[in-house]
Amino acid sequence: MNTNTIKAIAFDAYGTLFDVHSVIEVCDELFPGQGTRLSQLWRTKQLEYSWLRALMGRYVDFRQITEEALIFACRQLDLPLDEAYRKRLMEEYLMLKLYPEVSDVLPRLTAWKRTIFSNGSLDFLLPLVKHTELEQHLDDVISVDDAKIYKPHPAAYTRVLEVLQVKREEVVFVSSNAWDAAGAKSFGFHVAWLNRTGQTFDELGQPPDFIIHNLGELLPILQKQQ
Amino acid sequence: MNTNTIKAIAFDAYGTLFDVHSVIEVCDELFPGQGTRLSQLWRTKQLEYSWLRALMGRYVDFRQITEEALIFACRQLDLPLDEAYRKRLMEEYLMLKLYPEVSDVLPRLTAWKRTIFSNGSLDFLLPLVKHTELEQHLDDVISVDDAKIYKPHPAAYTRVLEVLQVKREEVVFVSSNAWDAAGAKSFGFHVAWLNRTGQTFDELGQPPDFIIHNLGELLPILQKQQ
Repeated sequence: MNTNTIKAIAFDAYGTLFDVHSVIEVCDELFPGQGTRLSQLWRTKQLEYSWLRALMGRYVDFRQITEEALIFACRQLDLPLDEAYRKRLMEEYLMLKLYPEVSDVLPRLTAWKRTIFSNGSLDFLLPLVKHTELEQHLDDVISVDDAKIYKPHPAAYTRVLEVLQVKREEVVFVSSNAWDAAGAKSFGFHVAWLNRTGQTFDELGQPPDFIIHNLGELLPILQKQQ
Repeated sequence: MNTNTIKAIAFDAYGTLFDVHSVIEVCDELFPGQGTRLSQLWRTKQLEYSWLRALMGRYVDFRQITEEALIFACRQLDLPLDEAYRKRLMEEYLMLKLYPEVSDVLPRLTAWKRTIFSNGSLDFLLPLVKHTELEQHLDDVISVDDAKIYKPHPAAYTRVLEVLQVKREEVVFVSSNAWDAAGAKSFGFHVAWLNRTGQTFDELGQPPDFIIHNLGELLPILQKQQ
């Protein structure tokens, strides 16, 4: 990779900048002892539903997918989800926590356009960006919602090119989600897989260009190659 | 549903007619105590990879997907998979067991064309059909492989119409996989979800027409409606 040509860094949001498992605390408050199980199944189904709806050609926005995944997870785990609980848990998605290093690292990457590129629709994502005070460190927030298709479909990643007016090889995409990193690599982005927790990369024939263990490792890699 | 118009019954293969977890025994022999975990992760990743590759536009056949899912699962679980083990486990996929009622029920459904419709490519699927002696009870075995796309993409289900020369509403599709049942319903088939083990149906806005608990319940349902 020749990073002289890099113009933009696109960050995945959920699981990469924002910890989706921030919801465990409230899950545990509402359903004592079930927080971790519920959070994990909720996330698993959220991703599955985004892939399945994209394949079926039945797009609905990420808020709805997230809510439907929550409903499924509670049914599967036999947890009584009334309307108040549902509302409370869905609101948690607008208040996810940043991973600890994010606020320190983003301000140091001003040599490039910094953007979020996410499955989340803007009405779902922007309150989170605002709440975590990331706005000041971002040049743009891009959603697949305008393309009405989810990652890893190429038409989703194309949104980054359209919005930023850059070429594929001018983008470094950063994601903690191996499937998303593979999809971006397949699309033609340079890819850094952010492996915070010792995960195994997916066998999809699309290995990432870099593996980093926290976001702080990104800057030296980009500088070193210039 | 008016089943007077039904001309064909299409059965999903893996998880519906054939028990994918038949592999547990050999998994356990090779990796003592790890059989169930390995089998579950192997299956989970097999499905994920079929969806992700379909979305990425990176089709490879189901044998390769199955093998890549096995490689991932062993890496993730820290199980040493050498070439002999890999070969042995992949061969198990050609010797999966039928669910107990299948051999009794299929011969009683001769009023309709009976076909398998599967993600499996024919070279992967036909040895299994032969080994379980299902050939005599089937009019056809249809694979998505000719469309080079996986379920639940509509182009996959379209293969059934092309091969059997029937219309969507003339087909009953039977699957134990909720996501597959939802995909078939979205496509326009009549759908029977075969829920053998008390699963929860997916929240994808595509409920099945019927829920059955073993394959034997299919015949009275189809007869009753005639």
